[in-house]
Amino acid sequence: MLSKNTVKFIKSLHQKKYRLESGKFFVEGEKSVVEVLQSNFTVDLLLVTQEFATKHATLLSGKAFEVLFVTPNQLEQLGQYQSNDAALAVVQMKPNQAFLPEKGELILALDEVRDPGNLGTIIRIADWYGIKKLIFSSHTAEFYNPKVIQSSMGSFTRVQFYYGDLAQAFQEWKLPVYGAFLEGESIHELTNPTPGVLLLGNESQGISKEVEKWVSSKITIPSFGKAESLNVAIATAIFCDNFKRLVHP
Amino acid sequence: MLSKNTVKFIKSLHQKKYRLESGKFFVEGEKSVVEVLQSNFTVDLLLVTQEFATKHATLLSGKAFEVLFVTPNQLEQLGQYQSNDAALAVVQMKPNQAFLPEKGELILALDEVRDPGNLGTIIRIADWYGIKKLIFSSHTAEFYNPKVIQSSMGSFTRVQFYYGDLAQAFQEWKLPVYGAFLEGESIHELTNPTPGVLLLGNESQGISKEVEKWVSSKITIPSFGKAESLNVAIATAIFCDNFKRLVHP
Repeated sequence: MLSKNTVKFIKSLHQKKYRLESGKFFVEGEKSVVEVLQSNFTVDLLLVTQEFATKHATLLSGKAFEVLFVTPNQLEQLGQYQSNDAALAVVQMKPNQAFLPEKGELILALDEVRDPGNLGTIIRIADWYGIKKLIFSSHTAEFYNPKVIQSSMGSFTRVQFYYGDLAQAFQEWKLPVYGAFLEGESIHELTNPTPGVLLLGNESQGISKEVEKWVSSKITIPSFGKAESLNVAIATAIFCDNFKRLVHP
Repeated sequence: MLSKNTVKFIKSLHQKKYRLESGKFFVEGEKSVVEVLQSNFTVDLLLVTQEFATKHATLLSGKAFEVLFVTPNQLEQLGQYQSNDAALAVVQMKPNQAFLPEKGELILALDEVRDPGNLGTIIRIADWYGIKKLIFSSHTAEFYNPKVIQSSMGSFTRVQFYYGDLAQAFQEWKLPVYGAFLEGESIHELTNPTPGVLLLGNESQGISKEVEKWVSSKITIPSFGKAESLNVAIATAIFCDNFKRLVHP
């Protein structure tokens, strides 16, 4: 039975303020909920329809969290999806822990990518290309924003990330930093790049002056037409594709 | 002076039904309006703020269409932008005219791409890579949808397109058709492709069975991680980038 307090609490998680206060966020829809149940995230509470519970019975058996049965209509009231006939999970955030790159690893760094849809799409791209670690400047969109979770299509469960000072991290890591600029070396001309950091900047401002100091190579996507720019998620995908083509894993 | 009828008419253009009935659509925001004024589209009516008119005076002088002065607040009431301190144009649709590919040209074909944001982003990508001609299956999102126009970032003015039967066009053109599939030849392994048609399918169903018959090469984006798929606009960008890298213009 869904209590008024639970309803109020889940609704509060639409706002960043309450997510930070509680250290919790929500995940909705069949695919994303299945992925989070199979991940190392800690689920606190799971709301499911009878249909989801039957279909994914093995995923639910022997779990420590509370499971409540609800209707699709209740799920749609609670989440952001217009239609959700499956599930919604309340999940614990992970601590913001710094990581160190491993030898030969490609790291993705974002300098103030502000749009949650872009961030989620970038996480999905990172997961496609086997990039496991992402570092975000402090003003990058919030990882636990429902739109980020939604647009990552479950890939949010498979990446390691932290928010921190990019300049400081680059200084410590002593790795080549490939920064995306409108004027740089064409990614089609690049040969045998040494793995390191792939850095993308803000949607309209690009990479900030302070972070630019740590860029060892400015790279660009060659243009053959007249569009002035590409969306940051599109650009990330093209850079990742070229790096993975050049640096055989 | 903005009449009630004009307000009503512009508001009606948010709906496909009224766009088709009138043969008109609207374009909003500084960048897109400037682009449409510089293009071969026919503008019927232009609403501008004093600021826009001053900044772009040369663009407005000697033009045949009516210009009305409005406030940002009026623009925001009429369009879909939350903030618009520049302009909104009512523009005539172009006739749906078939084209023929030129020798060595790369054509983009979309088989039921339904999301207007994806279509707009794909148009922007086509423009970046110098792809001038696009063919859409009849159930592909509508080119003149305000979200398509918005997400194309002005690139909608620089492409030629038509809605038609893909199978029939491919049959007539007798060109190689490279179809995007989750299982196909890796785009990283492709060598010296002959320019022809790059074909992308629906967001969830992919390329339809009927159109698949005309695919001469199934191509895919190699995966290095665990994401199940990539967004169709992201995939389009990666295919275009690889084709342009391989087929030196």
